[in-house]
Amino acid sequence: MAGSVFGKQFQISTFGESHGKALGVVVDGVPAGIDLCEEDILSFLSRRKPGQSEFTTKRNEPDEVEILSGVFEGKTLGTPIALVVYNKDQKSKDYSNIKDVFRPGHADFGFFEKYGFRDYRGGGRSSGRETIGRVCAGAIASKALASMGISLCTYTRSIGPVEMNSFDASEITKNPLYMPDAAAAKKAEEYLKACMEEKDSAGGVVECVVSGMPAGVGEPVFDKLDAKLAQAIFSIGAVKGFEIGEGFGAARSTGSENNDAFCVKDGKVKKETNHAGGILGGISDGSDIVFRAAFKPTPSIAQLQHTVDESLTEKEIEITGRHDPVIVPRAVVVVESMAAIVLFDALLENMASKMDRIVDFYKR
Amino acid sequence: MAGSVFGKQFQISTFGESHGKALGVVVDGVPAGIDLCEEDILSFLSRRKPGQSEFTTKRNEPDEVEILSGVFEGKTLGTPIALVVYNKDQKSKDYSNIKDVFRPGHADFGFFEKYGFRDYRGGGRSSGRETIGRVCAGAIASKALASMGISLCTYTRSIGPVEMNSFDASEITKNPLYMPDAAAAKKAEEYLKACMEEKDSAGGVVECVVSGMPAGVGEPVFDKLDAKLAQAIFSIGAVKGFEIGEGFGAARSTGSENNDAFCVKDGKVKKETNHAGGILGGISDGSDIVFRAAFKPTPSIAQLQHTVDESLTEKEIEITGRHDPVIVPRAVVVVESMAAIVLFDALLENMASKMDRIVDFYKR
Amino acid sequence: MAGSVFGKQFQISTFGESHGKALGVVVDGVPAGIDLCEEDILSFLSRRKPGQSEFTTKRNEPDEVEILSGVFEGKTLGTPIALVVYNKDQKSKDYSNIKDVFRPGHADFGFFEKYGFRDYRGGGRSSGRETIGRVCAGAIASKALASMGISLCTYTRSIGPVEMNSFDASEITKNPLYMPDAAAAKKAEEYLKACMEEKDSAGGVVECVVSGMPAGVGEPVFDKLDAKLAQAIFSIGAVKGFEIGEGFGAARSTGSENNDAFCVKDGKVKKETNHAGGILGGISDGSDIVFRAAFKPTPSIAQLQHTVDESLTEKEIEITGRHDPVIVPRAVVVVESMAAIVLFDALLENMASKMDRIVDFYKR
Amino acid sequence: MAGSVFGKQFQISTFGESHGKALGVVVDGVPAGIDLCEEDILSFLSRRKPGQSEFTTKRNEPDEVEILSGVFEGKTLGTPIALVVYNKDQKSKDYSNIKDVFRPGHADFGFFEKYGFRDYRGGGRSSGRETIGRVCAGAIASKALASMGISLCTYTRSIGPVEMNSFDASEITKNPLYMPDAAAAKKAEEYLKACMEEKDSAGGVVECVVSGMPAGVGEPVFDKLDAKLAQAIFSIGAVKGFEIGEGFGAARSTGSENNDAFCVKDGKVKKETNHAGGILGGISDGSDIVFRAAFKPTPSIAQLQHTVDESLTEKEIEITGRHDPVIVPRAVVVVESMAAIVLFDALLENMASKMDRIVDFYKR
Repeated sequence: MAGSVFGKQFQISTFGESHGKALGVVVDGVPAGIDLCEEDILSFLSRRKPGQSEFTTKRNEPDEVEILSGVFEGKTLGTPIALVVYNKDQKSKDYSNIKDVFRPGHADFGFFEKYGFRDYRGGGRSSGRETIGRVCAGAIASKALASMGISLCTYTRSIGPVEMNSFDASEITKNPLYMPDAAAAKKAEEYLKACMEEKDSAGGVVECVVSGMPAGVGEPVFDKLDAKLAQAIFSIGAVKGFEIGEGFGAARSTGSENNDAFCVKDGKVKKETNHAGGILGGISDGSDIVFRAAFKPTPSIAQLQHTVDESLTEKEIEITGRHDPVIVPRAVVVVESMAAIVLFDALLENMASKMDRIVDFYKR
Repeated sequence: MAGSVFGKQFQISTFGESHGKALGVVVDGVPAGIDLCEEDILSFLSRRKPGQSEFTTKRNEPDEVEILSGVFEGKTLGTPIALVVYNKDQKSKDYSNIKDVFRPGHADFGFFEKYGFRDYRGGGRSSGRETIGRVCAGAIASKALASMGISLCTYTRSIGPVEMNSFDASEITKNPLYMPDAAAAKKAEEYLKACMEEKDSAGGVVECVVSGMPAGVGEPVFDKLDAKLAQAIFSIGAVKGFEIGEGFGAARSTGSENNDAFCVKDGKVKKETNHAGGILGGISDGSDIVFRAAFKPTPSIAQLQHTVDESLTEKEIEITGRHDPVIVPRAVVVVESMAAIVLFDALLENMASKMDRIVDFYKR
Repeated sequence: MAGSVFGKQFQISTFGESHGKALGVVVDGVPAGIDLCEEDILSFLSRRKPGQSEFTTKRNEPDEVEILSGVFEGKTLGTPIALVVYNKDQKSKDYSNIKDVFRPGHADFGFFEKYGFRDYRGGGRSSGRETIGRVCAGAIASKALASMGISLCTYTRSIGPVEMNSFDASEITKNPLYMPDAAAAKKAEEYLKACMEEKDSAGGVVECVVSGMPAGVGEPVFDKLDAKLAQAIFSIGAVKGFEIGEGFGAARSTGSENNDAFCVKDGKVKKETNHAGGILGGISDGSDIVFRAAFKPTPSIAQLQHTVDESLTEKEIEITGRHDPVIVPRAVVVVESMAAIVLFDALLENMASKMDRIVDFYKR
Repeated sequence: MAGSVFGKQFQISTFGESHGKALGVVVDGVPAGIDLCEEDILSFLSRRKPGQSEFTTKRNEPDEVEILSGVFEGKTLGTPIALVVYNKDQKSKDYSNIKDVFRPGHADFGFFEKYGFRDYRGGGRSSGRETIGRVCAGAIASKALASMGISLCTYTRSIGPVEMNSFDASEITKNPLYMPDAAAAKKAEEYLKACMEEKDSAGGVVECVVSGMPAGVGEPVFDKLDAKLAQAIFSIGAVKGFEIGEGFGAARSTGSENNDAFCVKDGKVKKETNHAGGILGGISDGSDIVFRAAFKPTPSIAQLQHTVDESLTEKEIEITGRHDPVIVPRAVVVVESMAAIVLFDALLENMASKMDRIVDFYKR
């Protein structure tokens, strides 16, 4: 449990450095009988692929995925599924300028202090490429959720100071920023171009809405559904904030404003509002689950920056090369993947909550 | 792992319902040789004790703690420490008005859906009293951290719309709201009184600053130090947001503003600013760790609210009785406890990061 | 995870030193809706109670158990169940003769090396009293299994060189050694008396037969059902061997002798023999699960023994006082408890093995 | 945690079906700074390679291993190490005779009941090839242990009824059965030839001796060092018994015979005998750790056997093809690998046992 393993029943173990031989994941605990092929994974991976627009790095990463195990005759076996993406674009770049330098805003210094030794090429394990394994696993979890009628819609809520003002799901894939508001996307593109001209970068907020989640799922206390989502989302590099429902806004409101009244609709318990974001006391309440993650600006910028190297010499550096001016659009699918993993895992764990249903399960 | 166990090496297992016989915790993985007595625990528990001011519930909870195991001749044995607080103030109140009703903003409906059966007295397991076990364990972790030169300072940053404008650590314990700004505390008290007159409640934000944390601690990927803090803090009832360093503000800034330049001070790598909040890539960077948690307003309010009961009948309820108009001041020590548990656990896990230090450890 | 937590979904966390204030367990992951009261626990605890015959220690341990949480109106809530047994017979004995001495065959030296400090009274955490928490949890697991039609029969197979030759379940509780063979029990009693006269002690073998376990339960690879049983049983102090089905005998047989032929009985797949002991490839095969545990002789003997103390001085000691000449009869219920915990945990985990059944579960 | 993940700090996650695309492992928690290359892994893998003698299957499995991550410039990075072995010898054999048949002594029926669907080619996940991932990880753990002065010697103790009578370490690699006794190896070879003529198979016992393990390592209660070894070894397919030190023999001896007297040698606490097998109360005592595992006879035999297929039709089958008449010699390195993983993991976890050493560790 040195940190690259996540989940309880649906458990992922990721591996890989940015410029190493390959990256990937082993997913243990995938139930048997799910239809699965490489295409299912690729459709997710393509959403985090670089080179899609002027706002993503120009690196060429075809990300061809191989399923090494756990699938037979097109179906999951119940055994671990190993997925691997070989690095193809490993050109032997000259890293001498950053090899022993701690880049500001990066994990370099922490890795050096922790391990005394690091793969300096492209960030090594702390690179955004680390998320490949997560997205592969997320594709599987999403397929499982879909078969249960649960779907996730994830998009960019804001880029820098530019926030969306309207929501049209069909817009999300029509602009390179994955924003559900065409006008805001336009403004955000302009903002990004201005950043790039200044050799600067931007951050933003990703939002995810989960529909179809049954009520009563999630474990009270430490494994609250929102607490596991918080860990999962915060484990994505560059995330600096996480909130659910009204989030930080709830801290400024009053109980009478923030409480959601219960009512009965179609013979079911429903809520008239959803300030809670679909989770109460750590357990799903049957409403949509709504959460947001704040991403910091890409730390790799071409401006001159002051820093220190491994020999404790102060230096100035400019980080040139192929870097995303904003990582938010490519992070959208990573957020969705981590959420899918948490939700499916919670659904599996929840099957053990009532003794009568367990007895019933084994009677069939 | 049904949700009441947390931590890897320093692992806590809490138990107890609000109006059950007792609440407490078993802490496994406490290293041997720490001086520990009931007083150490009580000094923490007293910070979450109700009845301390007009802004906390009038319930009388003396919270006398018993150490049942794991301590011998005043020192920890290395074996599990069981801590128990018996419920004294269990007056057989009449619960008929809320027994089968789902209180808005509460976990009642989720527990009913999940378990089909619940302890309706005072929220049962979803009560704020559930945090007693966390605080007991946090007291132990804090003692261990103190012996390593690591300290935590936690306080109320805002109550409703009233935010602190200045920081004076000595002020924190001088006002009932645990705010480090006397003037803001005054304003917040007035705001709370107004809420109470309206039979309403307030939320707020708690901030925690950790000093003395060495650089290089935390596991990359899923167990990033901030990801574990996010889970730990989000697992506290009523938390709806978590952020570290600039948090959501980072999403609106640019790379050149948000990156912290490295420099050398006293022969050590330091950062000139701390927008990151002391953690980069999930690993501590040697600066203070700074994070915030948003708490929603207390859901129990005496205003008339619309809701539903277990038989799906719509109802109006008023939640009378002894309830905190704001839980933020009492949550301060809970946030500090959870953070202490995460940090100490990470320090233990980190000892295995370098082979040469392991070899060296066993040579002695 | 410092070693006092066991199980995944049905997870126990035990605590307590032999002569500390109390011993007990917190059981997390007990499904809601099981009828449970203190009597259910006591009926199990009474089977490990000392003072029942001349072959068990004369210590008076009434072992009154208190349920502190997780049960409401006679039913489990789905929340953690804390169970505590206070030590009553803590007479302030003089421990000066063993205080800093490493008793042969005991854990004293290991604890001293590991922790540098130990509770020398009665073995502290390494005492047989540590099993109280296990038995409390085992009583709960057994109740759950019984409601699913699964039962365990556990007994003494041999004491020293005296082995049972016949099996009559009704005999088990008729003799103080829990042997299913009256004649063998008689011989074993004589053997034990001879040992006691020599100030010596004896070991033995416990056997457990599980009936009603459905086929298809257990996780392949590391969490094979027999591998988890092996850990669970080997974690009981004094166990030195574990085997399933033919066990070590299988190593001497041939494939044609050892393979169990499959056949069809009453429309179900059955085996004509059960050399496998009910588990194939780590998964239950629907036959009875049969395993054995070898217990070493009680290490506390009144004979003069050579040893060393904490200051590395060689010494002679005689361990006087109240010690069982054989622990096997009292260990029977501990073996049964650990097995019940493993089996119920495996049944819960197994619910997630097929996608169609998961979809079906959530449709209801 | 569906069963293919093992270990706490040094954690392995294996994958792969016998005739799938590849098999392998991800090892998380390998400390940084260990020299590691493919050769280190291959030297272990070659010990389980088939085709080495007339007593192992004739399959040609070159087992070329690739390190995909976690190693940079010849050293471990502290990040997960992914190791993969592609299947080369996947000839499209005709499986129609066993496709839907439950082979006696195999896991086929259990997999079918659990997952409803299985990879019938060569046993799929329940094949002996599943151990490839274990051996890869074991090679890494063994390198780490070696740097701490800890070594493992593993060999065949018996084949069928033929047991070793003498021990000469240099003999082990001189005969195809890995026996430390040349005369016994000769006899065992004859026994095996006789079995093969009868279209039958044999079992046997593997023994492992660990030297150099420091005293004081292992966690009391459920994660006793011997309990973790028991799980690890029992998780190897075909193991039916496990014992430590005197093992089942201890159950027949008396306390005065079985207790090991402590003494002082070279200023250190030692034991005059080692009936305990190097572990007391679950904690290493500084003596050699000695344990044994019983393997059942290979279930695949060419004799006619009675069985059932998926449609519940009774059948006769002969399992022809390339099968080991005994798996014991090839299992030797698997046993050693699992033991190395357990021991190194325990050493890492043990670093957190004393507060003063933790404080000291972070002071440097």
